[in-house]
Amino acid sequence: MLRLDLTDLDFERSFAELVDARREADADVARDVRAILAAVRDEGDAALAAFTRRFDRHDPEETGWRIEQADCVAALEGLAPDLRAALELAHDRIVAYHSKQRPADSDQVDDAGVRLGARWRAVQAAGVYVPGGRAAYPSSVLMNAVPAKVAGVERLVMVTPTPDGEVNPLVLAAAALAGVDEVWRIGGAQAIAALAYGTERIKPVDVVTGPGNAWVAEAKRQLYGVVGIDMVAGPSEIVVVADGANDPEWIAADLLSQAEHDPTSQSILFTDDALFADAVAEAVDRQIATLATKAVARDSWDANGAIIVVERLDQAMPLVDRLAPEHLELAVDDPEPLFDRVRNAGSVFLGRHTPEAVGDYVAGPNHVLPTGRRARFASGLSVLDYMKRTSFLGLDAAALGRIGPAAVTLAEAEGLPAHARSVAIRLS
Amino acid sequence: MLRLDLTDLDFERSFAELVDARREADADVARDVRAILAAVRDEGDAALAAFTRRFDRHDPEETGWRIEQADCVAALEGLAPDLRAALELAHDRIVAYHSKQRPADSDQVDDAGVRLGARWRAVQAAGVYVPGGRAAYPSSVLMNAVPAKVAGVERLVMVTPTPDGEVNPLVLAAAALAGVDEVWRIGGAQAIAALAYGTERIKPVDVVTGPGNAWVAEAKRQLYGVVGIDMVAGPSEIVVVADGANDPEWIAADLLSQAEHDPTSQSILFTDDALFADAVAEAVDRQIATLATKAVARDSWDANGAIIVVERLDQAMPLVDRLAPEHLELAVDDPEPLFDRVRNAGSVFLGRHTPEAVGDYVAGPNHVLPTGRRARFASGLSVLDYMKRTSFLGLDAAALGRIGPAAVTLAEAEGLPAHARSVAIRLS
Repeated sequence: MLRLDLTDLDFERSFAELVDARREADADVARDVRAILAAVRDEGDAALAAFTRRFDRHDPEETGWRIEQADCVAALEGLAPDLRAALELAHDRIVAYHSKQRPADSDQVDDAGVRLGARWRAVQAAGVYVPGGRAAYPSSVLMNAVPAKVAGVERLVMVTPTPDGEVNPLVLAAAALAGVDEVWRIGGAQAIAALAYGTERIKPVDVVTGPGNAWVAEAKRQLYGVVGIDMVAGPSEIVVVADGANDPEWIAADLLSQAEHDPTSQSILFTDDALFADAVAEAVDRQIATLATKAVARDSWDANGAIIVVERLDQAMPLVDRLAPEHLELAVDDPEPLFDRVRNAGSVFLGRHTPEAVGDYVAGPNHVLPTGRRARFASGLSVLDYMKRTSFLGLDAAALGRIGPAAVTLAEAEGLPAHARSVAIRLS
Repeated sequence: MLRLDLTDLDFERSFAELVDARREADADVARDVRAILAAVRDEGDAALAAFTRRFDRHDPEETGWRIEQADCVAALEGLAPDLRAALELAHDRIVAYHSKQRPADSDQVDDAGVRLGARWRAVQAAGVYVPGGRAAYPSSVLMNAVPAKVAGVERLVMVTPTPDGEVNPLVLAAAALAGVDEVWRIGGAQAIAALAYGTERIKPVDVVTGPGNAWVAEAKRQLYGVVGIDMVAGPSEIVVVADGANDPEWIAADLLSQAEHDPTSQSILFTDDALFADAVAEAVDRQIATLATKAVARDSWDANGAIIVVERLDQAMPLVDRLAPEHLELAVDDPEPLFDRVRNAGSVFLGRHTPEAVGDYVAGPNHVLPTGRRARFASGLSVLDYMKRTSFLGLDAAALGRIGPAAVTLAEAEGLPAHARSVAIRLS
């Protein structure tokens, strides 16, 4: 864990290093992924089966390519009642929040008599990647699938690897709840290729979202443009801005809730109280020891954790903007003045009773958020990621008479005579 | 030019080939671009100067790195009055259309007492690439710069190569009109690298947009994630759906307005009138001969043009959706029923007096649109490309008491004990 004080002589240098530190794997997977994508594009299901035998150690021709809707419903019905209720509460609140994101169409006639508008439509088909193994989270299924369904996607396809043939009932239950239309037991870069290009069995989709390992992320990156994708995600991050009136145990728990995700995760505390900083550091060490995830949390905190002491909390805000964190907690009595000064953050958690984890599951906003300083320009996953906008315009002879001559002038100035003629020929 | 009839026995095979045909250059520029990006990242302005000497044949240390605001204003003031008026009309109409795209923030408290919202902010800085030479269009400057300024971008940077040191006064005039804050005379992949990484002279930006050649497009693709980018654009396309009541000369002019862009451009006519199809084909041949751009238009029409005859125009609409064209004209008396059936198109031009070219310049909607079937999932450039959304939530103890227990249940089911604790510790 790095400890900095704004009054340190070399603060700027140390902080700049923290901002610029790359925690993302630089594994040279690009070539492997290129080969996998080409094989699936050219050989379809045969390549998919071969990669699945090799990486997931089962043969889809025997275990089955698809997981049937009935199996997903059975998984949902097999959940313990409190777990099912929790999943349903999460689902309903995510639906409610995302329903408000549906964009409005426009259609107006302006003073020149020109009809102008924009119309939003859902993509026809979308694919959601769900990792197998440790990171197979039902909450991720909901966070990716619900916005697609709220957008109006007709065909929602889930792909998920089933290592050694083992399925994850929680993931299937979430798929049933979210209304996923097809579930395929494939994973890795080959599953992304199947969604983008289509195979004999699997029809292609228009948009692919969902978290995955370095191969999955690289496959999405390489197929960007063949399909739409969500932002490539890096390790999770939290920045907590907290005054000394907080319970250090609460803040320590919040920092650890990111640290336990992965050794590359990052948790940073800004505080204006050096004694509180000490207390949080002690609480973190104490709490880590009790966690089932202690090895991961320890590695993350030691390598990437930071506590930064400032004199006044408003001094933290320009620094937070430079970090552009995925998650930002403002743990003070009145968070509004600090929140006003935030430009770059994926999601903000206001006040002392809003731990970030409540947003991971049940609050409603999406937990798929920009990482690695990308909150400078990117947004969390939303209904818009599964829709696209068509602009339109309509002129009659009179309207074209008003604005057409200017188009002719500009087309001629740009050296595009056929552009000019297509307007001019209608003006006479 | 390919001529198809829906009643042809092998129509489906021929049409599928048309849909799948790749017109985008497959030049292996990825390695060159990787080297250029690394050089600019590591060596900054020195690399930038070296590439500029090599590719643009001038030395920015002598010709000057920047084009000053005063030079842009002088270019605007030096325009012929009709050209200046046309450019100002275009600017004002583009501003008006894009101003309506500014998204609304939300901030509400729901039944559980949870405060939920979303807040949009402009990115701090954006860069616009403007090609040099033949494709240096002032209309492109407006279409990229205006949405950024409407979004509220504080620092808008233009980069444009000046081959042999020559500047394009039309481009400078458009920059002045649009309120561009900095203009740098650099281009190619090296200019994209400078915008993304920053150099000694040029501060980095958050989003890079604008058209360019294969090197520029590949540079944007490789830097996607380091900065935000707009969709990588391919060759321009138009699909015209027209009945026999149109003047074939008008429709021929529309088809040629795309064909003249580039030999890889594509123009496709759907009609329900075979004799009209013949008349358009003849008019195209006749008009081409008169164009200053005839060599390009001829190559494009011969290689990529198509006329497809259907029995009824509504039969064209599922085929149009498969093509997902950048531009779609519906040249009929009542375009509404056909427009209702369009899912995939970048922009739609309604009726007989709405040539696509009027949208290129002065109508108001953006002319930066998805190409290469990407209208299945992508939208034209908009104010949203220069903004990002921060979600937020705020709970008090009572609200956390209502939804927190479900978060604890889900976190435990996912094997994330620190997540569970960060909520549970606040519930007691």
